[in-house]
Amino acid sequence: MTDFVYRRQFAIEWGHCDPAGIVFNARFYEFFDRSTWLMFEAALGIPLQDLAKTYDIVGIPLVGAQAKFMAPAAFGDLAEMESRVLDIRRSSFDVEHRMSVKGALAAEGLETRVWAARHPDDPLRMQARAIPDDVIAKFKRL
Amino acid sequence: MTDFVYRRQFAIEWGHCDPAGIVFNARFYEFFDRSTWLMFEAALGIPLQDLAKTYDIVGIPLVGAQAKFMAPAAFGDLAEMESRVLDIRRSSFDVEHRMSVKGALAAEGLETRVWAARHPDDPLRMQARAIPDDVIAKFKRL
Amino acid sequence: MTDFVYRRQFAIEWGHCDPAGIVFNARFYEFFDRSTWLMFEAALGIPLQDLAKTYDIVGIPLVGAQAKFMAPAAFGDLAEMESRVLDIRRSSFDVEHRMSVKGALAAEGLETRVWAARHPDDPLRMQARAIPDDVIAKFKRL
Amino acid sequence: MTDFVYRRQFAIEWGHCDPAGIVFNARFYEFFDRSTWLMFEAALGIPLQDLAKTYDIVGIPLVGAQAKFMAPAAFGDLAEMESRVLDIRRSSFDVEHRMSVKGALAAEGLETRVWAARHPDDPLRMQARAIPDDVIAKFKRL
Repeated sequence: MTDFVYRRQFAIEWGHCDPAGIVFNARFYEFFDRSTWLMFEAALGIPLQDLAKTYDIVGIPLVGAQAKFMAPAAFGDLAEMESRVLDIRRSSFDVEHRMSVKGALAAEGLETRVWAARHPDDPLRMQARAIPDDVIAKFKRL
Repeated sequence: MTDFVYRRQFAIEWGHCDPAGIVFNARFYEFFDRSTWLMFEAALGIPLQDLAKTYDIVGIPLVGAQAKFMAPAAFGDLAEMESRVLDIRRSSFDVEHRMSVKGALAAEGLETRVWAARHPDDPLRMQARAIPDDVIAKFKRL
Repeated sequence: MTDFVYRRQFAIEWGHCDPAGIVFNARFYEFFDRSTWLMFEAALGIPLQDLAKTYDIVGIPLVGAQAKFMAPAAFGDLAEMESRVLDIRRSSFDVEHRMSVKGALAAEGLETRVWAARHPDDPLRMQARAIPDDVIAKFKRL
Repeated sequence: MTDFVYRRQFAIEWGHCDPAGIVFNARFYEFFDRSTWLMFEAALGIPLQDLAKTYDIVGIPLVGAQAKFMAPAAFGDLAEMESRVLDIRRSSFDVEHRMSVKGALAAEGLETRVWAARHPDDPLRMQARAIPDDVIAKFKRL
């Protein structure tokens, strides 16, 4: 586990919720995605829209994800999200998200993402690249 | 694993895709969700909007999910999704989704859902209920 | 035009954007919707999730909308949104939204919404109701 | 008005709907967007993902839109959408969408879009281009 923890708060919107009055499951992954981007911005100290250009990558696409939903989150609820890089390897990394509502854990997410550049032979395909040392250093425990 | 397999085809839309030109990860969970509903409609033989009313439940909310993304899906791609109930227990069940593009597996999903009714003490909370025998029978191997 | 102006700032997310790298048009209406809810919360001084219960309505559904898109908004851009009730009538009202990016107007929206209660004969239908005087007073020019 | 009419049917999904149990307003614009793309594919006879490459454009972004919502559409409803190019000008065009549910008009949309190429000086900006004659000919009344 790395030392860097990113925290943010946001409110559950009307448009996030389904006819059961609670957050539609696909929306949680938008919340996770958003926190991962913001965590990188905070950890690397560069605007998130400059990440691809700065490191000559396309992005940090997901290759795997897991989620648990413990308690519903409803319109107007304040969500508190805590995110950290659990593990960072040569060209991929795991991000854990813990989302609480009213002090209780409502959802947990685990994303596995790769550091991906445009494939040299096909602009629509991507290719994993080695994560630069300075990026790893920002997340790694000393 | 149950015998019931639900298959559908659908095209990847412009609005499903992100700046990398491929399906935004949260959208896959909309695709999975949609297939689960359609599978229930097909298996039970009732319109999906009547499921809640017919069985006196609120819905079939997710308590857990896993996904693997093997290959990107892009605007205009035809997705072929194959879904099945992997396991069905007293009040919860697992649904597996396999989405292929151009004959290759692009994404896999595993949803764990509960058969959920309104909590008697709190309309916003839900409570797992026993899945009716006739519902189980539709999915179970003979 | 009323005196009440609601302002907020928010960042354009990866998941808001399409393969052209700019905000997918449908997302602007989520931004407008969100601002309308927050404006009501700010003007009425009650949590937005209590609006329906407090006034015995289902919500404030749209019956019409217009938008103009002057300039693209891209991933990482900071959006500044300014919203006001342009007109408030017996049971409907118009909300204007102006969204700026980097100091230039990027999008304008005009929503027409109704103050809507559950139809007495059909729970899925809605019925316009007279907007309470205290709500109108919060928005009306003195 | 042009002669080309594009029709499709699709079902309202759980994830399209909000806590009022009806389609969240932003989703209608996804439906409109989708029909416009499919209409171009049908009219021009090329796969929609090849439109940009074939005509050396970035896309057909919206510069304006209007919508009217006459009746709610709910989970499970079958939507029938009818779309046509109302007017086609040098570098922009208007698309009208009429969405019916159970035989009654539920929503109307009017999109104004431009035929847009990458701006030569700035890859994130776009520039209107003259719509090719062969594209206009596909939509124009003889």
